[in-house]
Amino acid sequence: MSEANSVLIGRKPVMNYVLACITLFHSGVEEINVKARGRAISHAVDVVEVVRRRFLPDVKVKAIGIGTDKIVSREEGGSLTNVSTIEIVLGQ
Amino acid sequence: MSEANSVLIGRKPVMNYVLACITLFHSGVEEINVKARGRAISHAVDVVEVVRRRFLPDVKVKAIGIGTDKIVSREEGGSLTNVSTIEIVLGQ
Repeated sequence: MSEANSVLIGRKPVMNYVLACITLFHSGVEEINVKARGRAISHAVDVVEVVRRRFLPDVKVKAIGIGTDKIVSREEGGSLTNVSTIEIVLGQ
Repeated sequence: MSEANSVLIGRKPVMNYVLACITLFHSGVEEINVKARGRAISHAVDVVEVVRRRFLPDVKVKAIGIGTDKIVSREEGGSLTNVSTIEIVLGQ
């Protein structure tokens, strides 16, 4: 899977990421990798659900993976903390 | 899958749900269904990651599903709103 077809979910409104996914699919991309970490994980699920239920009913969830990343925490003085991740592969 | 083997993730600390999962597996259950809605989705992923990385390395993620529930919103005067859901099936 190409990294160019990834949509990384952050703190912007859900519809921004929905639009990014729709634009990618309309440009001819066949598979999109929706990624998120930490609290953005629930927004990633929102994005996928809005894309496939409201805008692109032909788009299917092909795979979902979860995992853990180690990050350097600014709040805890530079120590390593774990953060959960999700990757949702969408295809049409 | 029996509903009795479900762990519904809410607003309690993550470790409460981790303990619930460990207790279920130790009681002989072979499959647990971790469920969450809305913002609790990211906590559901946290619970699963802590269970399998820190406590029960033999436990595998067997399946992950996402979806949408319609709920009656108290904030919006009783109108129907959509809320995203996740179900993560754990097995040992």
